[in-house]
Amino acid sequence: MIAKSLSSAYANLHTNAERMNDTLQHSCQWGSTEDGGMNRLSGNDDDKKVRDWFIAETAKYGCSHKIDVMGNIFAIRPGQNNDLAPIGLGSHLDTQPTGGKYDGILGVCCAIETLKVIHENNITTYAPLAVINWTDEEGARFKPAMLGSGVWGGVYSTEYAHNQADLDGVTMKRELERIGYVGDVPCSYEANPLLAHFEVHIEQGPILDEAEKPVGLVKSVQSMRWYQLDLVGRSGHTGATPMDRRSDTLLAAAKMIVAVNEVVSIPELAAKGARGTIAVITSQPQSTNTIAGEVSMNLDLRSPEDSGVDEIERLCRERFEKISNESGVALDMKAFWESPATYFNESMKDCIRAAAKQYECSHEIVSGAGHDSVYTAKKVPTAMIFARCKDGVSHNPAEYSRPEDCAAAAEVMLGAYLQYDEIIRRKHETA
Amino acid sequence: MIAKSLSSAYANLHTNAERMNDTLQHSCQWGSTEDGGMNRLSGNDDDKKVRDWFIAETAKYGCSHKIDVMGNIFAIRPGQNNDLAPIGLGSHLDTQPTGGKYDGILGVCCAIETLKVIHENNITTYAPLAVINWTDEEGARFKPAMLGSGVWGGVYSTEYAHNQADLDGVTMKRELERIGYVGDVPCSYEANPLLAHFEVHIEQGPILDEAEKPVGLVKSVQSMRWYQLDLVGRSGHTGATPMDRRSDTLLAAAKMIVAVNEVVSIPELAAKGARGTIAVITSQPQSTNTIAGEVSMNLDLRSPEDSGVDEIERLCRERFEKISNESGVALDMKAFWESPATYFNESMKDCIRAAAKQYECSHEIVSGAGHDSVYTAKKVPTAMIFARCKDGVSHNPAEYSRPEDCAAAAEVMLGAYLQYDEIIRRKHETA
Repeated sequence: MIAKSLSSAYANLHTNAERMNDTLQHSCQWGSTEDGGMNRLSGNDDDKKVRDWFIAETAKYGCSHKIDVMGNIFAIRPGQNNDLAPIGLGSHLDTQPTGGKYDGILGVCCAIETLKVIHENNITTYAPLAVINWTDEEGARFKPAMLGSGVWGGVYSTEYAHNQADLDGVTMKRELERIGYVGDVPCSYEANPLLAHFEVHIEQGPILDEAEKPVGLVKSVQSMRWYQLDLVGRSGHTGATPMDRRSDTLLAAAKMIVAVNEVVSIPELAAKGARGTIAVITSQPQSTNTIAGEVSMNLDLRSPEDSGVDEIERLCRERFEKISNESGVALDMKAFWESPATYFNESMKDCIRAAAKQYECSHEIVSGAGHDSVYTAKKVPTAMIFARCKDGVSHNPAEYSRPEDCAAAAEVMLGAYLQYDEIIRRKHETA
Repeated sequence: MIAKSLSSAYANLHTNAERMNDTLQHSCQWGSTEDGGMNRLSGNDDDKKVRDWFIAETAKYGCSHKIDVMGNIFAIRPGQNNDLAPIGLGSHLDTQPTGGKYDGILGVCCAIETLKVIHENNITTYAPLAVINWTDEEGARFKPAMLGSGVWGGVYSTEYAHNQADLDGVTMKRELERIGYVGDVPCSYEANPLLAHFEVHIEQGPILDEAEKPVGLVKSVQSMRWYQLDLVGRSGHTGATPMDRRSDTLLAAAKMIVAVNEVVSIPELAAKGARGTIAVITSQPQSTNTIAGEVSMNLDLRSPEDSGVDEIERLCRERFEKISNESGVALDMKAFWESPATYFNESMKDCIRAAAKQYECSHEIVSGAGHDSVYTAKKVPTAMIFARCKDGVSHNPAEYSRPEDCAAAAEVMLGAYLQYDEIIRRKHETA
């Protein structure tokens, strides 16, 4: 019912597909790579340049700015009721070192386009609007991922985040200071609250591409847990050491990689969407004729529900222990990061459904990847819109979303945001 | 018969166990590491120092010196018939970066001790004697292994070897020039011949240690072949990419590591002494939440006979192809080094058997590792003596041979060498 009345009020409002795409391409001049991808690590010179641009661009459309101590930037356009916290439209402008032009960037550009349409149509929203650039979502330089929104959402302390260092030992605080982005606002949902958070993001998976749909609603973000695996066997000469007298660390590691794949392929777990991957591996001493003595790996387990991850972990531990015992290779396994399953706000999801109706998308997707919205969802109503990306490829220079899909995502963000702002108005006017 | 007459002639000659051990420890002052191991890479400053010491030490015992263009050093003590090429007693003084005090070093020190005993007893051997330090046996800095003896044996050209560069791009020739060890003698079995080559080396395997025997005869060196494996799958987000839509390169690589182990464990191949190892692996992009897109590995296959390696390779290729097809990961597999099976000289082996009789060692071992003797054996009669090493551990700071085992190896070298020199005398005097 709400959706209907809103759609009539704002039926004539549309985002400008061409402008949005131009904005996205323009913002990618800082940090673009020759292969068509992006390398805009958090806190580097290109990150400073795109932040300066973000502030200048949003200032043109009626925004003033808050920068918090983590460098998160809130471009705020006042509403009718400025006693309320703003409704946030956010994502991130940092990228992977060999990343693409859409992961994060599309979300910020959709938010800017939404701002532009509202401003150009002289609309004063009920609650203030905040276009947000969250710091270091990728965690590619300063670990872990989603660090800016993580501090805001109370998951990490500012001190912890400030002290995270890159591979050269440079801390996040030092780099933020160097580029002039340690603001004076505390990084906290309490000191600098939001009323809600909408985020557009590329899907990073193949569901929409296969369904040939431009956009989809994100119903939740799956549960995820990361582990450090350290294996110690015994090095020795590959030629002189008989096969039955070895504690070959890389062989044991290989069996564990295969075991993870077998566990998540168990039909009951696979049917629930279990995922398990080892992608990071180092082996010592890396000599062709010396059996590996030490191997370290990172394990990434995911499932739509927390209980699913628990079950995968239990089965992996069982198999790892067997491999470890049989091969004489000691294993130390420690979880070092986790993010429980996140469920998005029902009312905001309704707004997205209504706004996306024109695209006939019935897909409601469980996000496999983490996003800033996972951390905002801990404190405020949050919802996400996914845009189709080609072949589901991301974290790769080949990452690509067609201009019309990007435009559709912006259109849905505009519609859903305006409807949710209307819900807030009704709630407060009724109260 | 020969052995008997010789043993009576030289029955009173013995190596000096304590002196030999002191010499070995003394020579390890250059390049020793805090963990009790060695880091004396070919051509570095410590390699220069130990070479200077080697020349000074052998000069005290009647030797003049030839240094060839590869830096191989021949310390030559004249014999009765100096028209003959010398009988070589050689090994190497370079080490792995995290190596031990015995691999190579023991062989050179046993040769020096043999020289000392002969010199102190005023013996003039029939053929001249050459104590040899071969350059870059380990191949740890300048690849491939056994480079100095490989050029001498006609396997590599001097130009090829001189142009081999370390990880910093410094060539072998430049480093040899820097430390003053590019000699004026051609590096060639033709221009600078030997009559034969004896080598003492630590076993680098567990056979003697388990049999509780100090020394053993080496009957041959197994066939070995190295391969470069380059795998290309498809990177993608670990959270967003469904399990059944992946071309996970590290998973395919893990299955290949397991497959190699399965192939060499096939009972018929295992019974013949098949060995297969993958110890070098790199994976890209090494991000916990990005499926590996590229993996490179080195594969090391060995078997006592060349036909054994052919068979292992065939079976590995079959399994790799299946894995590659099933996982959608492309594989490029290229052999980049090989050393066919090497069989040692029967007459020299008889001399070693006779000289080792006192230790009651019936063990005749197939060497799993390559040695300088593999390349001398291509051109001249060659044989090897193995010394026991603790737990079969080598290429490791924990590498250890007891002083009494080192002394036994020197004693066998002395006896076998003198007997073989006597065979040469008889042959020439009869002729």
